[in-house]
Amino acid sequence: MSLLVLGSIALDTVKTPIEEHADLLGGSASYAAVAASFFTPVKLVGIVGDDFPSEHIEFFKSRNVDLEGLQIVPGKTFRWSGEYMWDMNQRETRSVELNVFENFTPELPEAYRSSRFVLLGNIAPALQHHVLDQLIRPHFVIADTMDLWINIAKEELLSLIARVDMLILNDGEARELTGETSLIKAGRRIREMGPAFVAIKKGEHGCLLFGENQFFSCPAYPLEDIHDPTGAGDCFAGGLAGYLASRHLTDADLGEKKGVPFDMMRQAVVEGSVVASFNVESFSMDRLRKVTKEENSERYEIFRTLSRFEALDA
Amino acid sequence: MSLLVLGSIALDTVKTPIEEHADLLGGSASYAAVAASFFTPVKLVGIVGDDFPSEHIEFFKSRNVDLEGLQIVPGKTFRWSGEYMWDMNQRETRSVELNVFENFTPELPEAYRSSRFVLLGNIAPALQHHVLDQLIRPHFVIADTMDLWINIAKEELLSLIARVDMLILNDGEARELTGETSLIKAGRRIREMGPAFVAIKKGEHGCLLFGENQFFSCPAYPLEDIHDPTGAGDCFAGGLAGYLASRHLTDADLGEKKGVPFDMMRQAVVEGSVVASFNVESFSMDRLRKVTKEENSERYEIFRTLSRFEALDA
Repeated sequence: MSLLVLGSIALDTVKTPIEEHADLLGGSASYAAVAASFFTPVKLVGIVGDDFPSEHIEFFKSRNVDLEGLQIVPGKTFRWSGEYMWDMNQRETRSVELNVFENFTPELPEAYRSSRFVLLGNIAPALQHHVLDQLIRPHFVIADTMDLWINIAKEELLSLIARVDMLILNDGEARELTGETSLIKAGRRIREMGPAFVAIKKGEHGCLLFGENQFFSCPAYPLEDIHDPTGAGDCFAGGLAGYLASRHLTDADLGEKKGVPFDMMRQAVVEGSVVASFNVESFSMDRLRKVTKEENSERYEIFRTLSRFEALDA
Repeated sequence: MSLLVLGSIALDTVKTPIEEHADLLGGSASYAAVAASFFTPVKLVGIVGDDFPSEHIEFFKSRNVDLEGLQIVPGKTFRWSGEYMWDMNQRETRSVELNVFENFTPELPEAYRSSRFVLLGNIAPALQHHVLDQLIRPHFVIADTMDLWINIAKEELLSLIARVDMLILNDGEARELTGETSLIKAGRRIREMGPAFVAIKKGEHGCLLFGENQFFSCPAYPLEDIHDPTGAGDCFAGGLAGYLASRHLTDADLGEKKGVPFDMMRQAVVEGSVVASFNVESFSMDRLRKVTKEENSERYEIFRTLSRFEALDA
C-alpha cells in the first residue's frame, strides 16, 4: 500500500566541523518520503515556493513519490540552516526562514483521504491534527515530533499523541515529555498516553521500541564516520513507515483490527535504522540516491549479527 | 578454572535521591569477586584493615572466594562515600579515606601465581602491573580502569593496556583515552594499543564489544528502577571474567593459542550484563546475595529476545 507522508520541505544549509553545503534538499517530509520510497509508493503532503528547484521535483518523481499533495505557491521555500559541533551529536540552528511554510494548511487531495498508512512527520501538531481530521479510515498512523513542540505546543501535542498508533521521538524529548529520567519508564508512560507503539531514538546508541508488554532494543549500525546527521530521524521514521505499508498490499492484509503485530514492527525498526544509517554517510540525500537494493539487504543482514549471541558458540 | 581477582575492598557510604546507607561492603574486587563466584571459584587479592567486619569475610567464604590473597592488616579499611544525582547517571565522590589501602602492595601467594584467568579490577595501574609481573603464564588477562588513572597515571595505564588481552572501560573514558568522539573509532583505536578485546560500557545503553574484525552490541536490560548503580561495572567485569574461566576446566581446554573465541566472549558479555543488571536493583551486594541460578538463567533468556528480530515474523 502507499504511505501518506506529511512534513516540511526545505532548502538546508548545513555546516559540520569539516564541510559546509548550501541549498540542500531537506525537511522532514523530504527525508521521510525518500526513505519510505525504498519500500512503497509515497503520497507527499507539503509546501514549497516557486523557487524550489525543478531537479528536486524530478528526484521525488523518480522515487515514485506522488506530488498531487505538494503545494507549489508564489514565494520562497522554507529555509533552515544549522551547524554541528565537533562531536556531531550537538546541533545549533543558525537560522530559520519559514517563508511559504508560515501559512501552510495541508489540504489533502481526494485520492489521499483514504490512505491507510500515514506518517505525520515532524511539523506543528496543529497541522498533524488537521491532516488526521481529513482521513477517512486510517489503519496505522505514526507521528514524529521534536522538542520545539513539547515546549511551545504541548497541549496540542498531547491530544495528537492520544490519536495516533505510534509516536517516534528521541531520548531527550521522551524525558522532557514525561519528566522521567529512565527511558524505560518514559517509554511506558508515553504508551499510557495513547499510542500502541513508542520508539525512542538514541542516536549512536540505537533505538528502543515499546509495545504492549513487549520491548525491543535495536542496536545502532557501527559507523566510524558520520558526515551529516541531518534527517537521520526522518529517514528512520520514513523507512519504518514505508516498510509497514509495503507489508500490507490489500485491505485483506490489514486484518480486522487496527494496528500491526509487534514482530513486524521489530523488523520495521531495523529497516528504518538501515536507511538512516546510510543517510548520515553524506550530505542531504546524496547517499540515499545511490543505495542499491543489494546494499540495503546486506546492511539488514549485518544488523542481524550486531547483537546476536545465541547459537553462535559450539 | 578459578579466576584471580585484584582490586579494592571498601566500606562504602552511598546516597541516592531516595536513600542513604553507610558501611556497605564495596570496592571493585568485592563486587567483581562476588559476581564471578556465580560461575567459578575466585582467588581474591586485596587489603582490609582489622576493622573489617567478619560477616563480610564469611560472606566471601560462602561464595567460594579464596581469601589466601587477602591481606588483613592493622588499621582502618578503605572507605569511599558517594552521592548519585537525581538521574542516577551522575555521581559525585563525597569523600575517600585510603587508610590501609594507601600502602597496599599486592603480593601473590604461591598458589595464585599459576592462575590462568585474571581480572585486574579497577585499581592503580602500577598495582595491576605488579600483579601481572608475578604471574607465571596467564592465559587471559582482563583489565578494568577508570578516568582517574587516565588523568593521573596515563603512561602506566598505556603500558598496562599493551600487556593485557582485554580492556574494559566506559564510554566517557574511551573517548578521553583516545580523543575520538565516535565510540566505534575509540574501540578500534584501543585495540590497536594492544588488547585483542575491548568492551565499552554505556550504562543504560548497554555495551559494545570489539574483537578482530568483529563487533557485538549488547543491549541493556530494561530496568525501570535503579536503586544503586555502585559496582555495576565491577559486576559486569567479574561476571564476564568468571564466565570465561568457567568455560575452561583444564589446561587442554585452553587450546594452543592465548585468547578466547569471539563467540564465547559475546556470551561472556551477556553474562556480565545479567549479573550487573541484578546488582543495581539494591544497595551493595544485597540483590546478588539472593539471586538464584533460575533467576539468572531466566534473565539470560530475556537478553536473547531483547534485540532479536529475525525469524519472529511469519
